[in-house]
Amino acid sequence: MKVLLTGAAGLIGSQMTEVLLQQGASVLGFDNLSLGSLKHVAPFSGHKGYDFVKADISKPEWYAGLKGRSFDVLIHLAANSDISLGHANPKMELERTTLTTFESLLAAKELKIPHFIFSSTSAVYGANPVFPTPEETTRLYPVSNYGAAKLASENFISSFVENYGLSAWVFRFGNVVGEKLTHGVIFDFIKKLKANDSELEVLGNGLQNKTYIDVTDCVAGILWAHQKAPAGTKHADRFQVFNLSTEGSTSVKDIAEKTVHHITRGKAKIRYGTSSVGWVGDVPKTSLLTTKIQSLGWQPKFSSNDAVFNSIESYHAWAYGA
Amino acid sequence: MKVLLTGAAGLIGSQMTEVLLQQGASVLGFDNLSLGSLKHVAPFSGHKGYDFVKADISKPEWYAGLKGRSFDVLIHLAANSDISLGHANPKMELERTTLTTFESLLAAKELKIPHFIFSSTSAVYGANPVFPTPEETTRLYPVSNYGAAKLASENFISSFVENYGLSAWVFRFGNVVGEKLTHGVIFDFIKKLKANDSELEVLGNGLQNKTYIDVTDCVAGILWAHQKAPAGTKHADRFQVFNLSTEGSTSVKDIAEKTVHHITRGKAKIRYGTSSVGWVGDVPKTSLLTTKIQSLGWQPKFSSNDAVFNSIESYHAWAYGA
Repeated sequence: MKVLLTGAAGLIGSQMTEVLLQQGASVLGFDNLSLGSLKHVAPFSGHKGYDFVKADISKPEWYAGLKGRSFDVLIHLAANSDISLGHANPKMELERTTLTTFESLLAAKELKIPHFIFSSTSAVYGANPVFPTPEETTRLYPVSNYGAAKLASENFISSFVENYGLSAWVFRFGNVVGEKLTHGVIFDFIKKLKANDSELEVLGNGLQNKTYIDVTDCVAGILWAHQKAPAGTKHADRFQVFNLSTEGSTSVKDIAEKTVHHITRGKAKIRYGTSSVGWVGDVPKTSLLTTKIQSLGWQPKFSSNDAVFNSIESYHAWAYGA
Repeated sequence: MKVLLTGAAGLIGSQMTEVLLQQGASVLGFDNLSLGSLKHVAPFSGHKGYDFVKADISKPEWYAGLKGRSFDVLIHLAANSDISLGHANPKMELERTTLTTFESLLAAKELKIPHFIFSSTSAVYGANPVFPTPEETTRLYPVSNYGAAKLASENFISSFVENYGLSAWVFRFGNVVGEKLTHGVIFDFIKKLKANDSELEVLGNGLQNKTYIDVTDCVAGILWAHQKAPAGTKHADRFQVFNLSTEGSTSVKDIAEKTVHHITRGKAKIRYGTSSVGWVGDVPKTSLLTTKIQSLGWQPKFSSNDAVFNSIESYHAWAYGA
């Protein structure tokens, strides 16, 4: 399998590359290195099925050099992915999340890549009150620019499937965690505790409760669905949306306590805010119905809690050599 | 009321301007004149509450000159609006429909305009099989780039409402028709019959059946809802979506026959295609549930058929002086 991969140097992209190369696929990875890191892709350097290019995927030039090459699938992971940054800079969110998808779709169209895989998010559901939330729900009103930019991407994927003959699977992830974090609550807590090991300030009241998935499960779920899901000829067959997460969830309070325990042996005092959300556009509760992807025979190996607690240890070791 | 209006020289924008000026509002209109026409806004020239600027709304420069000015509402109508063009040129669709909305949202944010009105479309529902289609439905999978670009716009409007304090009403129109058409089935049929009055070629088998609304009803419905709909403080109150159309529908076959009768006195022979759709991304049947906007006390004056048949006559007279 020949894979064109965007966001190749991020948390998910680096895990995706590792698994694909193990399976004997070739991977041509692109990343703008805004959140991703060359450290993440260094282990693959010199592997004969692998190549990496630094490029801005939101510009059409990114695939100009690929004319005449053939790929079996375009896995599009490049995005901003740091939700709070998108509040401060909506144009950046549009460019890095929606326009990267649009240019990747044009790449798939121009290069005649038959299949497109997209990393979407539970943030597309906004403050939808139905838990666990199914893929087909009546309120898709994002409250973060990140969720809007991802859902806008999904819309264009849907129309490109009808207009230009590709098929596409969209995966709406819970919070993906693992060794190579680039942002998020664990990343932030450890950073804060490394700067000050006597106190941890938590954004919000700590009661936010969300679904987390280990990056190894996330990548395994995508590749499982890619092999098992039916293609067919109708739009409803060729464009499919899957929630991809664990069934459980983990509170911010639990993450704070575990991180303080691991990093400071319980020394740091945790100071909570008063708001039910951590930042504007934060969704205090996420829980995804995952029966659709499970009906394909896939199950995650790690629970939400295990994914989070493993990530605290593995990211700390990876990033700080501890 | 001080109104900032984009797409001011189009079918809906010119009617909106006429009504607002009659009501004593001031209107500052923008249009790139790609589909709209100066002929449409000529009647307002010299009116003391009116001004017009030609500009590309997809670029941030469009509102740079407005700093320090205040407006009560931004009515954003600028868009591609010709669905089949969006199939041939997806980037144009992105720019004229989604990016114009994004830059208009940034304008509302920067200029602190408290309320945003958006012209969306039944095309956001794609091939949703539920008829009449309610606003809150489980399948929002567009099959045209136009529908995708409009739904992507809605997504960013939703997140901007949460992030930056404005409120927004989104109106999903049926096919809007009237005197000042810029594109669409009536526009095309009359153009073809003016070139050749012995034959009319119809794209598709003629059985496409869609909901049409007269432009005067469309504008009246928007302004009615703007005055009547509740604001509130929650996202669900401040971001509202309304279907805006008549309850009936009209077939392409009926439109073809009425147009042939009116333009050629029945002389032209109608030749139908075999496909159930007129072009890639066409949706063969649209029917919108309109109970939400009707619950505000509003009713359209014209049926779908009357809107279509009136438009055949009035557009023909307007465009061809006949």
